[in-house]
Amino acid sequence: MPLMKSWVTSANAPGRLFPLNNLPCGVFSTGEDDPRCGVAIGDMILDCRAAEDEGLLNLDDAAVFDVPFWNEVMELGADAWDALRARLIQLLAEGSPDRDAVAPLLVPMADAEMYLPFLVAEYTDFYAGRHHATNVGTMFRGAENALPPNWLHMPIGYNGRASSVVVSGTPVRRPWGQLKGPDDTAPRFAPSARFDLELELGAVVGTGSDAPVTVDEADTMIFGYVLLNDWSARDIQAWEYQPLGPFQAKATATTISPWIVTRAALEPFRVPTPAREVPLLEHLKDTGPMLYDIALTVTLAPEGKPATDIARTNARELYYSAAQQLAHHTSAGCPMTPGDLLGSGTISGVEKYQRGSLLELSWGGKEPLTLDSGETRSFLEDGDTLALEGAAQGDGYMIGFGPCTGTILPALENPYAR
Amino acid sequence: MPLMKSWVTSANAPGRLFPLNNLPCGVFSTGEDDPRCGVAIGDMILDCRAAEDEGLLNLDDAAVFDVPFWNEVMELGADAWDALRARLIQLLAEGSPDRDAVAPLLVPMADAEMYLPFLVAEYTDFYAGRHHATNVGTMFRGAENALPPNWLHMPIGYNGRASSVVVSGTPVRRPWGQLKGPDDTAPRFAPSARFDLELELGAVVGTGSDAPVTVDEADTMIFGYVLLNDWSARDIQAWEYQPLGPFQAKATATTISPWIVTRAALEPFRVPTPAREVPLLEHLKDTGPMLYDIALTVTLAPEGKPATDIARTNARELYYSAAQQLAHHTSAGCPMTPGDLLGSGTISGVEKYQRGSLLELSWGGKEPLTLDSGETRSFLEDGDTLALEGAAQGDGYMIGFGPCTGTILPALENPYAR
Repeated sequence: MPLMKSWVTSANAPGRLFPLNNLPCGVFSTGEDDPRCGVAIGDMILDCRAAEDEGLLNLDDAAVFDVPFWNEVMELGADAWDALRARLIQLLAEGSPDRDAVAPLLVPMADAEMYLPFLVAEYTDFYAGRHHATNVGTMFRGAENALPPNWLHMPIGYNGRASSVVVSGTPVRRPWGQLKGPDDTAPRFAPSARFDLELELGAVVGTGSDAPVTVDEADTMIFGYVLLNDWSARDIQAWEYQPLGPFQAKATATTISPWIVTRAALEPFRVPTPAREVPLLEHLKDTGPMLYDIALTVTLAPEGKPATDIARTNARELYYSAAQQLAHHTSAGCPMTPGDLLGSGTISGVEKYQRGSLLELSWGGKEPLTLDSGETRSFLEDGDTLALEGAAQGDGYMIGFGPCTGTILPALENPYAR
Repeated sequence: MPLMKSWVTSANAPGRLFPLNNLPCGVFSTGEDDPRCGVAIGDMILDCRAAEDEGLLNLDDAAVFDVPFWNEVMELGADAWDALRARLIQLLAEGSPDRDAVAPLLVPMADAEMYLPFLVAEYTDFYAGRHHATNVGTMFRGAENALPPNWLHMPIGYNGRASSVVVSGTPVRRPWGQLKGPDDTAPRFAPSARFDLELELGAVVGTGSDAPVTVDEADTMIFGYVLLNDWSARDIQAWEYQPLGPFQAKATATTISPWIVTRAALEPFRVPTPAREVPLLEHLKDTGPMLYDIALTVTLAPEGKPATDIARTNARELYYSAAQQLAHHTSAGCPMTPGDLLGSGTISGVEKYQRGSLLELSWGGKEPLTLDSGETRSFLEDGDTLALEGAAQGDGYMIGFGPCTGTILPALENPYAR
């Protein structure tokens, strides 16, 4: 599919992340106005609340844009999502008869403050990147036992904490936690010294289900995707995670990009999962290409210094698709809800520069990374700003996510020393 | 504290679970009426929505009983909870001048259908029963390594799935899942053959926090307690839980009792945690008695057969209090929300008959339990009805929870064979 041209001319420029083909969904405010739903087009945002008020968008008998989150649209289901996309294209395409009515409803993106684009119902984080799982397993258990025995048979995941999900730009406070090094005789309560990022893609579940769903059904339940940084305190995790998995190590924050790129916008970029080393059981079998070719980068900027590209990888490096993760999630009867968020797991490639976490990039701190400023990093330092970026490269256009950033604030004074 | 007498005479009878001292909070409906908040008193329920409409309850400037859940009351905070309790005692005490106004607002409990008493924001399940952790650890890792090294230093927990929480009486469908026995060469997808209960107490977080809280602050954030059965598929868990913890094994359902027994009602029953084998770090230090002396029983009734008592234990057997769990939960900065639910972990005692799961009672299936009907049980069979009950024994009265029950339905036909 080629670039679809818009009368919003900034959307047509090469290298723009938000052409008419994209139309990602966010929540924004300007000036003193309340947050409201909007769609990115070029360097502008279409105010969907205003468009609904003006009668230009009529998705449902009742208003769906009278709330500052996309959940009400999501709950309408995939046919409504398609109808919305078709209508937005009609309104914004070159030669649209509605141009004069729509133009006053555009707001410059540069003036907008962004919010979480949806109410996160529950948050699940998977571990579906094979290179990441192999790297981490090699460090912790040796190369022989790198991949857990179950890993090639199902997408391993754990429930995270929806309350900790924040939008890009929110500062992230270095956490305190129980730490115990291998040579320590007892644990201590201290700020994490091994605070890390995880480069992930997040799938936004748009429609729910009370019963198990197939991979194909799961695919149609996904409204769209966000970039996701699952901040991780490696030292807290190492001491707490046996036998019930990560808990406080992953509880500080999870940052997502402000724009949900819809599944429809990503259709042209579907790619198959990798060849299967062992056949998957029926409920997880691949039925078509359900990964996406999305180039991903991570940059790290120390306070007051320029950013260094520390990783470049691609979402196609995953082993399980979000549809497979969601099907597996329902397999024991777990009810899914509109607004559920599924993290893909850290996306690393086979090469060193493709690794999606500092744990892997610095090999557990043994091989510190040198930044362009000359500084080195094993894990994150106070003042560091991390930015994930992602874009699919189309034929003369890009489908971008916009940045997913966070700056590390120093730990609080000991919150318990009172 | 002795029995407080009510003009609702059924509340004064010895052995009653709902005297004036108790006043637990539920959501009920009768006939064709919508669900609404109510408080149990004897064999009646006081309709709180009606009492608010009549001007008998005025907790806030705005109505808080116009919704069928207790979250709006919870959000008002501990002072409002105390004020509500004081007012309810005034209305329902023997000699109350409001008796004539209140009497028409009472509904027989026998006519009521019960619902989830609150909207579960997020659900966390802990592992704070030492005998349970020791039993399970002994079975899985041997007596030498029974208790994980971190266990005596912090309450181990994992995030569960709020969408799977159901109210007592909801049937529970045996789940399908990936199973792989130790001698199997490959996993298969099949109904769980080792489906189990877990006897727990659930703490209902009433007020939230965005910052770490102390144990004392955590205690005041807890609105009340419910009985909780964390249904568990042991065979799914054994294959999936490394390295990120239980996931689909715990996703089918978690059943809670219909009544939230308030923290205020349980005040007289506070008991200290056990002697500490190793000192706790500052953020977890005991500051007073924060466990409760609540007798707990589990009964199992095969379909069409009488129930057998299969376990008798006490909530004082826990090693960590809910306040300690909640403080730990916030220690890395995890935001807590009104309506968060914290499962205590399975409560077992030191004796065999005090074990709160079939996994322990049948020692992994090696020592099947014989029921009164002559049948044996290693794990749950289709048609079995499980009931948890709990009550604190006061001076001439009891503080009861009401039953927490569920009947096992057979597994679906293979949901993926289509």
